[in-house]
Amino acid sequence: MSHNTLGHLFRVTTWGESHGPAIGCVVDGCPPRIPLAEAEIQSFLDKRRPGTSRFTTQRQEPDAVRILSGVFPDPDSGEQVTTGAPISLVIDNLDQRSKDYSDIKDKFRPGHADITYDAKYGLRDYRGGGRSSARETAMRVAAGAIARKIIPGVTIRGALVQIGARAIERANWDWAETARNPFFCPDPRAAADWEDYLDEIRRAGSSIGAVVEVTASGVPAGWGAPVYGKLDQDLAGAMMGINAAKGVEIGAGFAAAALSGEENADEIRMGPEGPVFLSNNAGGILGGISSGQDIVVRFAVKPTSSILSPRRTIDRHGKETEISTRGRHDPCVGIRAVPVGEAMMAIVLADHYLRHRAQTGA
Amino acid sequence: MSHNTLGHLFRVTTWGESHGPAIGCVVDGCPPRIPLAEAEIQSFLDKRRPGTSRFTTQRQEPDAVRILSGVFPDPDSGEQVTTGAPISLVIDNLDQRSKDYSDIKDKFRPGHADITYDAKYGLRDYRGGGRSSARETAMRVAAGAIARKIIPGVTIRGALVQIGARAIERANWDWAETARNPFFCPDPRAAADWEDYLDEIRRAGSSIGAVVEVTASGVPAGWGAPVYGKLDQDLAGAMMGINAAKGVEIGAGFAAAALSGEENADEIRMGPEGPVFLSNNAGGILGGISSGQDIVVRFAVKPTSSILSPRRTIDRHGKETEISTRGRHDPCVGIRAVPVGEAMMAIVLADHYLRHRAQTGA
Amino acid sequence: MSHNTLGHLFRVTTWGESHGPAIGCVVDGCPPRIPLAEAEIQSFLDKRRPGTSRFTTQRQEPDAVRILSGVFPDPDSGEQVTTGAPISLVIDNLDQRSKDYSDIKDKFRPGHADITYDAKYGLRDYRGGGRSSARETAMRVAAGAIARKIIPGVTIRGALVQIGARAIERANWDWAETARNPFFCPDPRAAADWEDYLDEIRRAGSSIGAVVEVTASGVPAGWGAPVYGKLDQDLAGAMMGINAAKGVEIGAGFAAAALSGEENADEIRMGPEGPVFLSNNAGGILGGISSGQDIVVRFAVKPTSSILSPRRTIDRHGKETEISTRGRHDPCVGIRAVPVGEAMMAIVLADHYLRHRAQTGA
Amino acid sequence: MSHNTLGHLFRVTTWGESHGPAIGCVVDGCPPRIPLAEAEIQSFLDKRRPGTSRFTTQRQEPDAVRILSGVFPDPDSGEQVTTGAPISLVIDNLDQRSKDYSDIKDKFRPGHADITYDAKYGLRDYRGGGRSSARETAMRVAAGAIARKIIPGVTIRGALVQIGARAIERANWDWAETARNPFFCPDPRAAADWEDYLDEIRRAGSSIGAVVEVTASGVPAGWGAPVYGKLDQDLAGAMMGINAAKGVEIGAGFAAAALSGEENADEIRMGPEGPVFLSNNAGGILGGISSGQDIVVRFAVKPTSSILSPRRTIDRHGKETEISTRGRHDPCVGIRAVPVGEAMMAIVLADHYLRHRAQTGA
Repeated sequence: MSHNTLGHLFRVTTWGESHGPAIGCVVDGCPPRIPLAEAEIQSFLDKRRPGTSRFTTQRQEPDAVRILSGVFPDPDSGEQVTTGAPISLVIDNLDQRSKDYSDIKDKFRPGHADITYDAKYGLRDYRGGGRSSARETAMRVAAGAIARKIIPGVTIRGALVQIGARAIERANWDWAETARNPFFCPDPRAAADWEDYLDEIRRAGSSIGAVVEVTASGVPAGWGAPVYGKLDQDLAGAMMGINAAKGVEIGAGFAAAALSGEENADEIRMGPEGPVFLSNNAGGILGGISSGQDIVVRFAVKPTSSILSPRRTIDRHGKETEISTRGRHDPCVGIRAVPVGEAMMAIVLADHYLRHRAQTGA
Repeated sequence: MSHNTLGHLFRVTTWGESHGPAIGCVVDGCPPRIPLAEAEIQSFLDKRRPGTSRFTTQRQEPDAVRILSGVFPDPDSGEQVTTGAPISLVIDNLDQRSKDYSDIKDKFRPGHADITYDAKYGLRDYRGGGRSSARETAMRVAAGAIARKIIPGVTIRGALVQIGARAIERANWDWAETARNPFFCPDPRAAADWEDYLDEIRRAGSSIGAVVEVTASGVPAGWGAPVYGKLDQDLAGAMMGINAAKGVEIGAGFAAAALSGEENADEIRMGPEGPVFLSNNAGGILGGISSGQDIVVRFAVKPTSSILSPRRTIDRHGKETEISTRGRHDPCVGIRAVPVGEAMMAIVLADHYLRHRAQTGA
Repeated sequence: MSHNTLGHLFRVTTWGESHGPAIGCVVDGCPPRIPLAEAEIQSFLDKRRPGTSRFTTQRQEPDAVRILSGVFPDPDSGEQVTTGAPISLVIDNLDQRSKDYSDIKDKFRPGHADITYDAKYGLRDYRGGGRSSARETAMRVAAGAIARKIIPGVTIRGALVQIGARAIERANWDWAETARNPFFCPDPRAAADWEDYLDEIRRAGSSIGAVVEVTASGVPAGWGAPVYGKLDQDLAGAMMGINAAKGVEIGAGFAAAALSGEENADEIRMGPEGPVFLSNNAGGILGGISSGQDIVVRFAVKPTSSILSPRRTIDRHGKETEISTRGRHDPCVGIRAVPVGEAMMAIVLADHYLRHRAQTGA
Repeated sequence: MSHNTLGHLFRVTTWGESHGPAIGCVVDGCPPRIPLAEAEIQSFLDKRRPGTSRFTTQRQEPDAVRILSGVFPDPDSGEQVTTGAPISLVIDNLDQRSKDYSDIKDKFRPGHADITYDAKYGLRDYRGGGRSSARETAMRVAAGAIARKIIPGVTIRGALVQIGARAIERANWDWAETARNPFFCPDPRAAADWEDYLDEIRRAGSSIGAVVEVTASGVPAGWGAPVYGKLDQDLAGAMMGINAAKGVEIGAGFAAAALSGEENADEIRMGPEGPVFLSNNAGGILGGISSGQDIVVRFAVKPTSSILSPRRTIDRHGKETEISTRGRHDPCVGIRAVPVGEAMMAIVLADHYLRHRAQTGA
């Protein structure tokens, strides 16, 4: 129920504002005796960290995570492991560049949460977006790193498959490529093209949308539950909950609307290790329950609303005005949404793994 | 957390299988003293009821709902009102056509939940799909009728905007038209076209996917909550949780990926009654909170997996075989998904209304 | 969160009023493939059923339970088993004696929920207490019967240990005796004494309080969880939530306040099958987690507020008046609270078993 | 569901171990624009702080709390207020006296959570009790300070009413007295008596149990909800969840078992401001809903298990041994349980206030 908690049995509660002293999260429900070191969490944070290329915000944050609770040396091995108690993670905010907020303080950026926070709460922490800042997603990535450790047979990978109208060629897909360009792009030719394209957008002080694809391999059949505990329901919610997300699809997704029953049916044969599907329009989920195939989710993110061109807007006193945003921001928030999407996949799967284990003992 | 419960403060718990004695739900958390009669719920059920045209399943069910608890005459007006206690609704299953299930009993329909239920639970109620049947959605519609009563200023309407690859012309949109054709189609020309198109599919024993659009007008600014209680997060989950849904988008949705920040920004002016937005790419939600604009959600549904053409599959003993489904089914489940989508919108909004009232007193 | 749902993973949602058409519950989260027949549930309901002796209300209700969903023949054994889907249970209300409610309709019985329901909701179903009636506890007993089936190694037994100021002699304790008298009393001498004592109270149209003790044997060490998922926390809440309960204690309970650390410490030795405690002041729970010892809970119930002697009160219009309750009622609600207390123990333990299994895999 | 979260709408998630780097909590669901300063929270922490008299543990902790998120200057008044975002509170652990844990590391203290944590998780943070330490209750007190601010008309006060077998004289009750002695005792004569009594216990390295009473005045009629959202159910759970608690009672409590219906009925008259009850056996709660009277809860705490006299026990390898606890500890944990009980009352009431507002709009 909690507005700032994700998950049911594997639960992640995040806190903190973009320009407050720190951000953090509490991960509760983690099974005991799972080896966990800060360095493992850090490696995922480093993928999301701002300032790693010219295509992300130039804010400088080392994003060094500290574990404040919930771990202890294993009495037998001496290795640091989880204790079953809540794990508290904290990242200090360091580069809270002191600046003049007089422009943004009272004006609402079109396409931004400024106006709705104000409508709901009667005030907002306007510094860097406060609670609505994408900075919060650092804690999702940190929690996702823990989630991965409790579903060790599952491989979760994300990629950027479209920037603006420019989609990758699926025939060129190479997972290894995602580590070689600043876009997490699996298609080397698209990555080269995007570099020029995004440079132009960046220089113009503009921004552009994107599509992210996340897959999970190795999920056994049986995770998820009818009818309101569906795995795809929770994945859709989790991905739509990422900042700037406006659409989510699973497997064939919106393309399934144009398919006939014959085309859509993923036929089944028997392989040496169990059922083998001849296609994956389902995206690995049938009736809300994993089928054993790869789980495939895509989500669309809109362009960031912080742009240089002046837009018409109002201020909190209802006066008409204009706004243009200088400051540091991402020309394409979709890039850093890739590790965030991976983290959401990991958190949802870890939660469903525990839920499945509770009901079935598996 | 419950697998069969939707919502947090306005909570809907459904139960029942397609061919069991009855289906039902318990609606908990409803505010007291809200007038509620069976006839009001029935009118929404009648929209979703099977057998009303040749384009939906020919199963004959009056779907007559009974209220078993939670209502009582108001001491002042004498009118039947909610008491604040849980409302139990039941619909008896009448047309459980006795048939030979020997074919479907052991075989898994490709694209259907048969195989995943079996993988998870070790058994399944195969009669008519059991718990995975779209019959369960009748209770969503019933609960949605109650949800509408607690957010009286909000108008929720749904429409079918695409069947197969054939989309409506948005310029032709006329809400009144949705009541004049068997497709809930807002475009009279598309409706005429679909009639022939779907007849052909129906006669061939095939099926086809579709896209449903649901809007909510009159939602005040402020409903929803960062960062894991986002209105769009919950709407995405709710819509993806509808049987056969494979994609969800809000406002500009996937098209937002191709927009620049300038194009995407919904500029704001001041009107006589408050802020006025010059466009609605946001679909009425910013930062997870309603902006006061229309909330616009679309979801794609895949074609039903019950088709006449034989498909390759396996049975529960792992033996390779084929299956073709005779029986009664919907050639396009998207049609009856329209009132279901409306109900999900109503349930999510009612829940968020109560959550907003809890935190802010508004 | 739901006001009418108990439990987190094993979830019981009840509905229905004393004089409505029926009462029922939905049990969600039950593991699949557990044999379950109506007769098994019925045997527990028969223990709680009204009208079985002159010491309980004379309302005549067979309390015949029907299972409407969530069970199906096991594909291998053919035996009816749970499917993992929600189990809907219904009991029709038959003996809703038509009577004149004009007296109770507007007046508040002192010590009864009449006045607080009215304050909260602005109305109440006054017929037989409506939702606040102890009739609701029939569904707890029914759900408890299912709960017992998922923790098969655990034996749960309840007894009445005090009526008014008359407590049993613990030295006389004999579990078999609880089935031989109408009080679930484990002490034959106390039972004989209570018979006369309660006859007198009954004839005077009065009522009296009582203390119930419930134990669970065979609970392995490890169920429950710090620090807000404590087993004793949930048991205390569950028992205090039984109609008329005013106190709960575990193990030594309130007597522990007078103990020194030396007296209270349950010393530990090693037995052939693991740790052996030399006493059980802890009542089987340490730090919120089961120790493997018997879990021992006691709760006090107040006398029913429906009595013959006139009491001063007000009506819903704020007018001072008097009230005396004729009608059928229990002279000592503690008697029928015994099977209810057992059911609450079973439900809490089943829930914690699943929670423990989720986190630890045990 | 979360094991380390208390509450549904006003939610408190605590984390941290006794001898880790820090302890903390996240308070979510707090209404916006409530003035909140660290000093207000600190004043309650100072009541619970260890080392303030010779009757509590001599551990020296300033327990200085920091607010890391969820507050911001009000745009109109400039005063620091809540923003509606989660409030993160942290207290650093300073006096983690470096010591030799070799004795306690492997042995289980009788009456302590050592053995059950080990049984559940396979390990435990043994330093100062780790997660099971009463140190965790500092965060309850901090969260309770915030809870009080959202129910401003409610006065919550606690008192120690019994140490060992020595109860106060109710005729001597004076709330002002609780601030004048180190026991929060409302009876000056009892306080004087306890001073010698507890000195003796302390010098002997022993410990003793106690009874705490907490009252809430000013709670309007209507908070709480049938049938599993009862105010007394949640209070009982919350109080039983306090470290060392073994019993909870409300109003007449266990004494109600010996009352007749006539004695127990709190008769009602009409006063100038509404209903007036002539007694308060109900402890302010009827049918799980507040009646407008004072809410009165008592809970018993057992003596601490850390005592000097050697007790028989086993170690984690199953070997029989003895243990005696030196170190710093409270001779009567009941004393510091008083502000903790107050905090639990505040948290439960704040949560129910929001739940009541959600359903009824009141």
